[in-house]
Amino acid sequence: MKNLTMDKLVAHCKNTGILYPGSDIYDGLANTWDYGPVGVELKNNIKRIWWKRFVQESENSYGVDAAIMMNPRVWEASGHVQSFTDPKMDCKSCKSRMRADTLIENFSKGSVDVDAMTNDEMQDYINEHKIKCPVCGNFDWTPIRQFQLMFKTSRNITGDSNDVIYLRPETAQGEFVNFMNIQRTTRAKVPFGIAQVGKAFRNEITPGNFTFRTIEFEQMEHQWFCKNEEEGFKYYKEYKDKAWQFLLDIGFNKDDLKFKDHEKLAHYAKAATDIIFNFPFGWNELNGIHYRTDYDLRRHQEYSGKNMMYIDPVTNEKYIPHDVEYSIGADRLTLAILCEFYDEETLENGETRIVYHFHPAIAPYKVAVLPLQKNMSEKAKEILKKLSKHFMCTYDESGSIGKRYRRQDQIGTPYCVTIDFETLENETITIRDRDTMEQKRVSIDELINFVKDKIEF
Amino acid sequence: MKNLTMDKLVAHCKNTGILYPGSDIYDGLANTWDYGPVGVELKNNIKRIWWKRFVQESENSYGVDAAIMMNPRVWEASGHVQSFTDPKMDCKSCKSRMRADTLIENFSKGSVDVDAMTNDEMQDYINEHKIKCPVCGNFDWTPIRQFQLMFKTSRNITGDSNDVIYLRPETAQGEFVNFMNIQRTTRAKVPFGIAQVGKAFRNEITPGNFTFRTIEFEQMEHQWFCKNEEEGFKYYKEYKDKAWQFLLDIGFNKDDLKFKDHEKLAHYAKAATDIIFNFPFGWNELNGIHYRTDYDLRRHQEYSGKNMMYIDPVTNEKYIPHDVEYSIGADRLTLAILCEFYDEETLENGETRIVYHFHPAIAPYKVAVLPLQKNMSEKAKEILKKLSKHFMCTYDESGSIGKRYRRQDQIGTPYCVTIDFETLENETITIRDRDTMEQKRVSIDELINFVKDKIEF
Repeated sequence: MKNLTMDKLVAHCKNTGILYPGSDIYDGLANTWDYGPVGVELKNNIKRIWWKRFVQESENSYGVDAAIMMNPRVWEASGHVQSFTDPKMDCKSCKSRMRADTLIENFSKGSVDVDAMTNDEMQDYINEHKIKCPVCGNFDWTPIRQFQLMFKTSRNITGDSNDVIYLRPETAQGEFVNFMNIQRTTRAKVPFGIAQVGKAFRNEITPGNFTFRTIEFEQMEHQWFCKNEEEGFKYYKEYKDKAWQFLLDIGFNKDDLKFKDHEKLAHYAKAATDIIFNFPFGWNELNGIHYRTDYDLRRHQEYSGKNMMYIDPVTNEKYIPHDVEYSIGADRLTLAILCEFYDEETLENGETRIVYHFHPAIAPYKVAVLPLQKNMSEKAKEILKKLSKHFMCTYDESGSIGKRYRRQDQIGTPYCVTIDFETLENETITIRDRDTMEQKRVSIDELINFVKDKIEF
Repeated sequence: MKNLTMDKLVAHCKNTGILYPGSDIYDGLANTWDYGPVGVELKNNIKRIWWKRFVQESENSYGVDAAIMMNPRVWEASGHVQSFTDPKMDCKSCKSRMRADTLIENFSKGSVDVDAMTNDEMQDYINEHKIKCPVCGNFDWTPIRQFQLMFKTSRNITGDSNDVIYLRPETAQGEFVNFMNIQRTTRAKVPFGIAQVGKAFRNEITPGNFTFRTIEFEQMEHQWFCKNEEEGFKYYKEYKDKAWQFLLDIGFNKDDLKFKDHEKLAHYAKAATDIIFNFPFGWNELNGIHYRTDYDLRRHQEYSGKNMMYIDPVTNEKYIPHDVEYSIGADRLTLAILCEFYDEETLENGETRIVYHFHPAIAPYKVAVLPLQKNMSEKAKEILKKLSKHFMCTYDESGSIGKRYRRQDQIGTPYCVTIDFETLENETITIRDRDTMEQKRVSIDELINFVKDKIEF
């Protein structure tokens, strides 16, 4: 990610069809982004290799895809209704709504431990230091109020309007709530895992940073249920290793990744760490691994009145399993990949080429088909059709061949195939490697097998 | 789908991990369903073959993945804010909220054309015929009011609470709003297509029918942009054929599918048809193909003030492209597949086997690994690991081999592999075909190539 700034990345993504601002023609909707033709392939590939690693190749792991809308009692059991809030205040002059903790953090430049402050203490601090509204410059605040971070909507199916529905602020509860159904229908024995990929929503005032934190995002999660605390700590360590290895296999440089253990643990957690990544805007969370004890299933047993006890089929022991949670944002991992594999290289002729060195398994297009001359386009499209049976391909017949290579480099297409006079004669093509820029001549069938082999993950 | 009723299907899905009621342990949330371990694989495979057919193998087609939350102006341009409503009334006695049109439809047994009635006419009809509340039996209604079918939420980022956000009631606007960004970044020439798979939400009072109509659902859409009306009608026909062929390729019996042209066209549409399917609860919509003219892009040009004119690079003609929309619900197609490929067969010994004859490309598990005896489980897991590199596999070592075959049949696993004494000696296994129930002995590598070949779509 040589020379990469966030501004440069956002511009590059907009220009190459990786990501556009959400609702762009209506001047956007803050903190939403739409994946374009290139981005959607990249993100789908990332979700696919994740599922392959964490479900398909993980013994005794099972997928689930729960509805985004859940019974509101779920969020009472999880604690979100009570405490998933931000302390906010409104500027009476300009109507801006601000987070009190962020105001103090920015004012004190981090010298105050805001997390430890109560609302009253924050209020006092702001009054004492007369912290002004960063938008209009006035000092004219409402008192601090707690704002729910869950988006609320309503079914409106009965005459009274009490039937609130929250948009899930995390996917994890979908795995917990389905624990018994999944155990029963798969007859899985503890230890076993439940995985989910899905959207979640948080009504946050975010600092931007592109898709790092958005109001709508997709999580990839794996909950591993095991017997007791001893096993919990054992698997916590295993999942730390597994998480780390997955990132290395994608091709991340280990110097751009670090473990950062949580300093304060949630009251129910016994261990928690993040893998943080060296984003252009600083080191930030990418991947969390938390040993959550039996807290979640226990809470659901309490709130639902349904039995969450697993019965060991051999020993007949009954217990509520402990859980090791692995969680990574699909959008955030995509962003980290967009940062990590970006490169600017100086060519022999002095030109700069922008190139994405994506692992071929996640590259949006595997092959670009490029006829050398216009009169070869019929043959080229015939080959495109053949290759498209096997992989996502793209086609380009406009501009010089060098210009076309540059276009493919900047979206990370690992192989460019040129169609020339020899192709018309003997069905061979020239394949050009994105990373080495070397070329060689092969038959179409050789090409298919070669690429198939390279895109394995 | 011999002998299939919806009750039987729902029970089968719950028992085999295909679908569970949403928020089950909290007694559910009406009209939400969670895909279990088997169902999530099925649905993901369906989405994958759809994407392969409609994006990867469709020349000049591009994917997009737009945010669910869009600028509210989008829904003014689309007409949803004004007219995406249902006429409802509340029973003052029991607080039930009912659709006035449904009340009249049920009361008149279809003899009245409700769609043509105004609210006043419906009100008069209900009063005249004293139509009672079907829940409590009283006649005590509030006046009819129009209820918005879009779920509403709010960002709450400013002091005033006007910043409403709708959950998108359809995915199509994500394609339209991004039309110019996609055309610009791909340099696509008209005609070209934009495809999207994503969730949408509708606050409907639904008649149930399992996942046929739910408040939250996933759409698979392809918009094909072309030059003018002549081209529009041409591609409308092409997409009808393409839609039909896709369903036949999945394996649908053509006697269970029919085209049903819309009797009334929306004012902007020039042609519209549905492919309807013979669900156990009757013939109902599965797949829509609509020729929408240049209406959508024209509306967005008007509401956003942004130029939606395509400039032909050869002729320099400027025009707003016409659109042929293809739309199918991922959940609804999954449901149709769950109905169509369900079978009950009587075996020679008089037993009934329930079997899903899914196309191997969409079968949740491709291979089940079954050690004949417990002491072969080590070898069996070694083979499971090898196969799992290539496909989604499952493992079962409990119960008789016949019982294990039945378990795989009822979730549609096309190939069962038994590990026996010979496996330990020479690495060959027995593969059993789900449909013919025939067995043959092959090497592991032969098996991998055989299955790879069968799961092509």
